[in-house]
Parts: sequence; structure tokens; C-alpha cells
Amino acid sequence: MEHLKVNTIGVLTSGGDSPGMNAAVRAVVRTALGENMRVYGIRFGYAGLLENDMVEMNMKSVSDCLQRGGTILYTARSKEFAAPEGVEKAARILRQAEIDGLVVIGGDGSFRGARDLTAAGIPCIGIPGTIDNDIACSDYTIGFDTAVNTVIESVDKLRDTSKSHHRCSVVEVMGRNAGYIAIHAGIACGAIAALVPEVPFDIDRDVCDRIKKTLHLGRSHFIVMVSEGVGNTEEIARYIKAQTGVDTRATILGHVQRGGSPTGRDRIIASRMGYYAVKLLRSGFGGRVVAIREDNIVDYDIDEALSFHKDMDRELYHLVGTISI
Amino acid sequence: MEHLKVNTIGVLTSGGDSPGMNAAVRAVVRTALGENMRVYGIRFGYAGLLENDMVEMNMKSVSDCLQRGGTILYTARSKEFAAPEGVEKAARILRQAEIDGLVVIGGDGSFRGARDLTAAGIPCIGIPGTIDNDIACSDYTIGFDTAVNTVIESVDKLRDTSKSHHRCSVVEVMGRNAGYIAIHAGIACGAIAALVPEVPFDIDRDVCDRIKKTLHLGRSHFIVMVSEGVGNTEEIARYIKAQTGVDTRATILGHVQRGGSPTGRDRIIASRMGYYAVKLLRSGFGGRVVAIREDNIVDYDIDEALSFHKDMDRELYHLVGTISI
Amino acid sequence: MEHLKVNTIGVLTSGGDSPGMNAAVRAVVRTALGENMRVYGIRFGYAGLLENDMVEMNMKSVSDCLQRGGTILYTARSKEFAAPEGVEKAARILRQAEIDGLVVIGGDGSFRGARDLTAAGIPCIGIPGTIDNDIACSDYTIGFDTAVNTVIESVDKLRDTSKSHHRCSVVEVMGRNAGYIAIHAGIACGAIAALVPEVPFDIDRDVCDRIKKTLHLGRSHFIVMVSEGVGNTEEIARYIKAQTGVDTRATILGHVQRGGSPTGRDRIIASRMGYYAVKLLRSGFGGRVVAIREDNIVDYDIDEALSFHKDMDRELYHLVGTISI
Amino acid sequence: MEHLKVNTIGVLTSGGDSPGMNAAVRAVVRTALGENMRVYGIRFGYAGLLENDMVEMNMKSVSDCLQRGGTILYTARSKEFAAPEGVEKAARILRQAEIDGLVVIGGDGSFRGARDLTAAGIPCIGIPGTIDNDIACSDYTIGFDTAVNTVIESVDKLRDTSKSHHRCSVVEVMGRNAGYIAIHAGIACGAIAALVPEVPFDIDRDVCDRIKKTLHLGRSHFIVMVSEGVGNTEEIARYIKAQTGVDTRATILGHVQRGGSPTGRDRIIASRMGYYAVKLLRSGFGGRVVAIREDNIVDYDIDEALSFHKDMDRELYHLVGTISI
Repeated sequence: MEHLKVNTIGVLTSGGDSPGMNAAVRAVVRTALGENMRVYGIRFGYAGLLENDMVEMNMKSVSDCLQRGGTILYTARSKEFAAPEGVEKAARILRQAEIDGLVVIGGDGSFRGARDLTAAGIPCIGIPGTIDNDIACSDYTIGFDTAVNTVIESVDKLRDTSKSHHRCSVVEVMGRNAGYIAIHAGIACGAIAALVPEVPFDIDRDVCDRIKKTLHLGRSHFIVMVSEGVGNTEEIARYIKAQTGVDTRATILGHVQRGGSPTGRDRIIASRMGYYAVKLLRSGFGGRVVAIREDNIVDYDIDEALSFHKDMDRELYHLVGTISI
Repeated sequence: MEHLKVNTIGVLTSGGDSPGMNAAVRAVVRTALGENMRVYGIRFGYAGLLENDMVEMNMKSVSDCLQRGGTILYTARSKEFAAPEGVEKAARILRQAEIDGLVVIGGDGSFRGARDLTAAGIPCIGIPGTIDNDIACSDYTIGFDTAVNTVIESVDKLRDTSKSHHRCSVVEVMGRNAGYIAIHAGIACGAIAALVPEVPFDIDRDVCDRIKKTLHLGRSHFIVMVSEGVGNTEEIARYIKAQTGVDTRATILGHVQRGGSPTGRDRIIASRMGYYAVKLLRSGFGGRVVAIREDNIVDYDIDEALSFHKDMDRELYHLVGTISI
Repeated sequence: MEHLKVNTIGVLTSGGDSPGMNAAVRAVVRTALGENMRVYGIRFGYAGLLENDMVEMNMKSVSDCLQRGGTILYTARSKEFAAPEGVEKAARILRQAEIDGLVVIGGDGSFRGARDLTAAGIPCIGIPGTIDNDIACSDYTIGFDTAVNTVIESVDKLRDTSKSHHRCSVVEVMGRNAGYIAIHAGIACGAIAALVPEVPFDIDRDVCDRIKKTLHLGRSHFIVMVSEGVGNTEEIARYIKAQTGVDTRATILGHVQRGGSPTGRDRIIASRMGYYAVKLLRSGFGGRVVAIREDNIVDYDIDEALSFHKDMDRELYHLVGTISI
Repeated sequence: MEHLKVNTIGVLTSGGDSPGMNAAVRAVVRTALGENMRVYGIRFGYAGLLENDMVEMNMKSVSDCLQRGGTILYTARSKEFAAPEGVEKAARILRQAEIDGLVVIGGDGSFRGARDLTAAGIPCIGIPGTIDNDIACSDYTIGFDTAVNTVIESVDKLRDTSKSHHRCSVVEVMGRNAGYIAIHAGIACGAIAALVPEVPFDIDRDVCDRIKKTLHLGRSHFIVMVSEGVGNTEEIARYIKAQTGVDTRATILGHVQRGGSPTGRDRIIASRMGYYAVKLLRSGFGGRVVAIREDNIVDYDIDEALSFHKDMDRELYHLVGTISI
């Protein structure tokens, strides 16, 4: 953590894109301009930084981006930056551009880069942006709410056809190794079960038996939510059909979940975090991650942030089973 | 074509469900009640008919279904009904229930059943309901507009992430052996190409060369629409990546396309067709299919309707290539 | 109608904006570039033309606008252009810029300007763009389908709360002096009545009596669609409440109806019309309006087009009453 | 607070409806059934209770309601219940039906009724359901997130047309005497100002000067969010136009904000609260309100809950001004 007077900052998005990243970029730019700082938008994340792909931003640079999915700064992954020479080169480029602070919007991998750049003399602030909600230090990551609502809208459509045909839909949703999207969408869609990588499950007990039990009570169509970290969605569908006799289909929702106009929640939290990140830089802080804990915006040392571990919320996990039977 | 006085009718949905079927059912029920006829809703298509699964409907039976996807009458496929004995049994059941006319909402297969039932003494009227728009006698089938708009909304989301990462998205859409969804969604989404089963294509000339040409003009992200009748979507994606160097991902949209609240167009055309079908029965007609031709509701003899052949609209096919380059 | 070789064209949007205008602009630009023509985008309609507010467009100028509501060329109304001197000045500016053909996207007023500019030596082609569908020569105008679907989505929300409280919602929709939006949305939303300026109505017979009649049949909530051309929506609501005893609320949907991402239908028809307009100019035609008649793209002389009269579709008007009781 | 063994419960919705109420009802019913309790749905709130309008519910009673706006139990206001005799009568009716616990979903007024009924011997649990978020004991009320997102979607459409015409849109949103919807939607929509009843404002300083300042920086269209508690939206629009010269229009969003399919957040929080409420009754508690505080479900004594005061979040209020300039 260094206490330099920061006058010019850069902002970049890194890793997978998520809805709301533009709201964060906009808040960073507008807050910095309000503080009479200069701001550079660095395109294509660390990869673009290494190629000096940056442009100075003004108030109009971020007009009409608040409601757009994706990232107006584009994003990429960079192998070159992962090496110490890459970090040194990036720091050099930033110094040449007289950028003395950087906001990095992305996930854990992006934060490691921000930590290394901070160590190389450029104070960095990380903002958690990923649809997966898998950043341990923060209750919430930008894009998660939009992704959950995108899943819900899709499953509400699947439900129409599942109901018409008395079918079971097994829906694979994103989340990498985290089951947050599956659990939240599972509750919101009335899934009979949500299978996630964090919690061991018994497909007979946790899925097939529930289906058979509620079939007897008159239920005729079913949603089973499967996190991509669990895998084998097609196989799960075949197994359910074989065990229960219910016509069962698998649907893999795919990259649709990464896009779309951000929800209010994503726009607002992104705006709050972008504002907070600039205030941190302005106050001389670096090497921090902005997070939200129990509805309050806070910040952590990056290394501390990376050391956190986040548990699946068992209350929510339990709730899926309770209220769908 | 028989001229009986029809006083009690049945209505069923058959084959795959499509958004707008409920609007058609509602119009059938409300129009019939307005004509002082009685109406029975037959559940699960011909399969349910063979099991006498029917219920009398009143004005309230179809309340608040206009805006719902799926079919409140449920649907199914029936092997038993395909045999002559099945048709005879169905006619007997209908006569026992004193149903002297039937409206069948579905596709070509369902119309063949309607023709056979008509021959067995129960005047039937078919209404084209399928998202695929693959019924030759009608310019339009109920559900198509909703499906196209569902594809568009999904691809608009994919575009966000394709643009952020400078990627190409290869999107597989439904349509069975027909490319209507792919062509219409292709134009509407700005796809660089739409591959359909009706038109032979050269993937180098029609896809890869176009991508390479526009890459030079500064375009950075691409949508390729592929009809399910073409198949091999994953393979097409790999080939495009290999030939163009653009990071390319395949997305299979799946059953989401069959559901969702119907658009205005689907609700309105379904309402017009349902109204028209009852008027036909009331006037003593049977063995007819309701269709829309150049915006007018018309009707054809079922056998004639089944003999039509519908060509892909070459103007639209050509348009994809012209305005996306 | 003149037969000049057109090599450079301009395109502008005029009057009220409508969703799909961007799809038309995009098709004009892309088709012209494909014909090796140059294209200028003229901003703010005729008003901008008189101020020489134009910019040359390339393939990228119309990237990612297909899915956006509004118009990337902006729009305005111009008093100056309405006078003969204005038209002369506009023609002079176009000649100075070596623009020898112009595509004008807008309504009847905009077409009159296009006719006058054609007479002043600049061949113009009109494309019908307005949410009101009130252009007599064309079955359809760009933006109408999106507006109808926007109304439907809003009324589907109103219905939730009307149903929960057993209320009647009187909904005022746009359309100026035309009732198309009201009739189409009325059918699509299951309105008990749609009041439009083209058809005289008796509020007791056509609204209150229907409500009272269906109240007895068990219906508990109601939608009444009112076109803005009818006016007095608040008063109508008070009258219905007084006559029927049903708690009745007025909602005026307002300018929300003018915006939003265009539907597939609007994107596709706009693309077809933009393509066709450039082909007309390229073939040496001017003073024409592009239209759609029974699903075919056609063109008319502007004066002839302006002389047409379009009747309300009585089949549709009648349908509202039939299937909502 | 009494410690009775509760075996049969009732559930009702009261006051204005809000999206997510059905998710709460569903969770109450399913959780109670899972505890082997009996559940009665009481229709039309306290008014229906006084008329003994109730029906026993099973697992299927709440099928397919999770995604619906409004309330399947209907709602109403009751003058009779407000009097002590009304409360006594209601308690008698509940005792006759052997209902020994009641879940009340609604706002502060509904909670006062729940307190009185508890005092009359029927343990009641309140769940905060209102789009206004104006219940002081809880950070969040069911329906708020959906309402905010409905406003955002509408304003995103208004923005299209405001941008095309270079206009200012003054948007009146709901919230009664609370500005939560206005503030949240204001941030999410990039409003230049959000006017709320809780914070005194100077229209010249807080709106007109900001518009004039950013006009000079090149901004051309503006959103001003006004809470209904502020009033005079039309007048505000006229004043802004007069002071700034920007063409300014007022839009009153109206009852559309009360409906619509609930967002994920509303479905999930409603489910958690419904589950929690039944657990409270099961454990012998009554006279409590369920609330969410910093993401945790908690409960308060009703009188204590009603005594809380909730301040406008100044961080959010301040944020609107900072990031929109």
C-alpha cells in the first residue's frame, strides 16, 4: 500500500466479460473527472496494456454505455503479462503514459496481476466483475444478478414447453467451479433440485426420489438445475428418465448467460464500486480489492482477499429442496 | 367436405407446442360460445382423445391464457392414433360425447389425422401451429414470430460477449428441415451468414471468405446462424476458427425457443385463425386447413394443403449476405 | 421521376423516431457500399440538412446499431424546410456535396419534403417509418410491431395488478389519429373493448354493457384499450367506474412506446425496405415511396402514395369484441 | 408473543400487490406442508377473512405461481377490519376454522392488523411486501427489485427517443412517500438528478444548472427521475424547458410498476421470508415481522418494527449527482 498523489489513472477490464462492467467503467471515469483527474481507458485488459492500447476518456466516452452488456474497453487474457517481465513492461508503459494508478475490473486472476503491478510501483485497485460470484472476499460480484435473471427468463420459457409435454428439463448453467448461479436460479425457478460442485449429492435420493414422490402428489413437470462444475448434464438427463419414466431433456444454456443489459442491481453495485475505487486511489491507496459485505462497500488488501474462502450458503441450498416439494 | 349442422365442437393441440396455441384455443372457445355452441377441450392431443381426456370449457376456462406460452390443453404424440383402428376409435369417442366438429392445432402430421377423422365422419379444421413455419400452405404458422424474437434476444446477448472478446459466435437454431428461423433471425441479428438445409452452401466462400474480407475492413465480431437441419454446428465453429483465426464458439439455443409469452403477431394471427376455424365448422365445412396468404386468412382442403411445396424466400436469403458485409 | 446515374447518396431520418429506423439506415448504407456507391448520413433530418450536418459513412458506421431503438442519425422537424426557399437551399447543399440521390425515412410529412426535393432535382425515395402505422400506401410502417409489443408487455404487467385487485384498467396508447396500435394491442391483450378514432362507439353498449355482462359470467378484471386520438382517457375511466361499479384506473403509456430494441419483424422489414430503396435510386428512380403490400415490397409515386386512404381493418375491430366476451 | 403449538395456519396478502408475493405464498404453503401442517389460503386480505373467503391449499395449489406477478390470493383493503370489532370477528372466524397461526404479507398497515390479531389470540407473522421499500425495519421489501427493473426497462426505451430528439425526459416513478425507487432507478438509468421527498432540493442548482453545465460538455439528452411523493412532474418538466432551452417531456410510469414477473432477487428473498415465517409460527412465535438486515433474515416484534425509522441512503443519493456529470 503506497501513499502517492494520484493524478492520472487507467482503467481496464480483464478475464471474462460480465454485464455491469460498463457501469463500473463509467463510474470510474466520471468520479475521476469530478476529482479533476485524467483517465485513460486501456483496451483488451493486460494484453492491450502491453501493446499500449489506450485512449484518454472524457465525460462523453462513457455516454450510453451504462445499459449495455459486455465491456466497451474489451477484454482478453494475456500469457505475456503472467510472467515477471510482462509486469515490469506494463509498469513501464504506465509510467511513460504518466498513469499513476490503475483500476482493474475482473476476477481473482486479474487481481493477482493488480497485486504484482502494485508491487512494481503502480497502485492498483481491483473490482470484482464476473457472473460466477466466485470471488471469496465479496458477497457479490458484478454480473451475477444479470446472469441469474437471464437463466430465470430462459427457464421460464423451458417451463412452458416442459409443462405442455409433461417433461423434466435438466438445465446446465454457468459458474465454473461455483454453484451460485445454480442455487439462486434453482430457488427462483422452482427447481426440484440444484446440483452444485460444492455439495456432494446422491442423484437417486436428491433428484429421482423427489421426482417420484411428487409425481404421486400430482406434479407433472420438473426442472433440475445443474452447475457446469458438476458436468455430465446429458448423462444426468438420461439417468433421470430411466429411473423415473419422465421424458427428460437436457439444455445447456451457454454463453447467452454472459451478456445482456445489466439489471438494476448490477448497475448500482458496479457504480458504487467504481466510485469507491477512485476514492481509494485518490486517497493514496493501492493493492486493494473493493468488495461488498452485508450491503456495505469495503476494501481488502489483495493478498488477504485472495486468501479468503467462501462457503456455499447452506440455507439457500437447503431451501431448494424444502419449497419445491 | 360435409355440410352438417355443428353444435358441439372439440379443440386439441397436437405435436410440438408453440407460443400462441393458447390464443388460438381461446379464440376457438370464445367464438364458439358466442355462437351458442358447446366446446370441449381435449387434453394431450390425439393420445388424450383416445383416452377420453376431455373437459367442457366456458368463458373462464380460457381466462388469462392468452399471454402464456405452451398449451393449456397439453400436447403429445400418439402411435395408436396413426393406425386406422385408432382413427375409428377416436371418431367413436367423439360421437359418444356428441362432438360433431373438431379444431386441431398443430403441424402437417396433425393435419393428416384431421383428414382421416374427417373421412371417419367428424368434420375437422386444422390450424397451423409450429415454431418452424414449415407448413407449405400457409405463409405463417403460429409460434414462428415468438421463436424468431427469442433467438434475437439470445443472440443480442451473445453479441455483447462476442464483441467484448472479438469472437465469432456460431448459433444453432431450431426449424427441423426448414431454415426459416435461421434466415429471419440471421437478417435480424446481422449475421454474416445463415446456413439452411434448403440452400447448398460453400463454407469457405459463404462464411470464411466473408469473415476474412470484413476483418480487413475493421469488423471484429461475427454471428453465423445455422439451422438445426444443417447440423454439425460444433464442427462448423472449429472450421471457421481454423480458417480465419477468429476465436469461434458454438451455441445451441435449444428448447428455450419453443416457449415464452407469445408476441403480438402470434397472439393476433392465432386469434384470427381460431375465429375463422369455428366459422368454417359452423358453416358446415370440414377437412379444411386455415392458412394465411399475403395477410389474408384463407382455407384449403387438407389434402391440397399437404400437397403444397414452400420454397425458401431467396430475396431474404440473399439479403443476409448483402447487408452484413 | 428522373433517370440519372446515381453514385453518391444521402440518408436521413425525419419526424418522430421509431424502432427499426437504424436497421433501415444500416441496410441503405451496406447496400450502397455493396454497389460501390458513396453514402452520407445526414443528421437531424431536413433541419440538419439545411445546416450541412452530414458525415460520410462506411461499413463500420452502422455496426451494432441494428438492435438499437431510436435513430443514430437523430431526427428533428424543420419549419425552414417547409418553405420553397428551404427546399431550394437543401437541393443546393446536396449538389455541393455531390449527393445525387436521397433516402428519407419517416412519415407522410417527410414524404412531402422528398417529393419537393425530387422536383428540385434530387431524386428521393421515401421509406415509411412511424410507430403509428398510419401511412396509407403501405400495409406496414417500421416501428409498429415493436410499439405493439411494448404495449403488450406493459399491459401484461397491468393485468397482474388489475387481477389481484379485481380492477378495470383503461390504457391509453399512441397512434395519433389512427387506431392501429389500439386494435392490435387490444386483440393481443384480451381487451374487452378497443376505442379508436376511426370507428364511432357507444361507451354504454361497447364497454359498460360488455363489462356488466361478463361480470355475471364470473370475469373479474378488465382491460379497455383507448387510442390517444379518442382522448379523455381519465374521463372514460371515471365513467366506467360509475356505470359498472368496478374499480377502474387510467394509465397513459406515453413515450415508452416510441423506444426499445426493435422486434424481428421491424428489423427485417426495415432491412428489406432499405435494400429496395437503394436499388431504386441505383436504377435511376426518384420520387417514389417504398411500401409493403400483402408481404411484397413495392413502390409508388409519392403523390399517388399520399393520395391513398387506409381503412381500419373491420375484421380486426370486430374480433376484439367477439373473443373477449 | 405466545407459545402455542401451531398446526394449521392461514396466509393472506394485504394492501397493494407486489411482484414476489406469490413466491412468498408458495414458500409458506410448501414449508408448512413439509412440517405436516395444514394451510389455508385466505383471499382478498383481511376483507376476505371477514367474509370467510378461504380455501385449503396443497402442493399443487401453488404450482406455477412463482413466476407470476400479482397475488394468487388477491388483495384488498378493509375498513371493517380496522375497527376493534373487525379484529374480534376475524379472530373468531380463524378459531372456527381451527387456524391457529397466520402469515400476513403486506406493508405497515397490514402489520398493525397482524399485531391486533395477535393480541386477540391468533399468533401472526408479517412479511414485508411492497414495491416501495418503505418498511423501516427491513432493508428490503418484496417487489422492490422488480419495480426498479421495470422502471429501468421503461427508461431505457425513453432514452432511445430522448437521444434521437435531444430531449430531456422527466420520469415520475412510484414510491408513495419514499424515494427508494427514484434513487435506485436514477443511478441505474444515469439520471442527471433524482428528486425524492426525503431530501430538500433546489431545482435550479440540482437539476437545471447540472443540465446547463453538461450541455457545454457535449451532452445532449437527459433523464430526471422524480418520486411521486415530490409531485408536480409536469410542472417540473415545464420549468426545466424554460430554464435550459432543452425540449423536455414528462412521463408518468404508473401502475405498470406494480406488475410483471418477479426478478430472481424478489423470488429468492420472498422464498426465504416465507420459509422463515412458518418456522417462527411452528416454534410458537407470534406478533413478529420477518425482515432482512445486511443480507440476513431476522425478525422483530411488530410494535418495535413499526417504531423504526429508515433514512434515505445518502451515499446512493450523492452518487446520482457524482457519476452523471
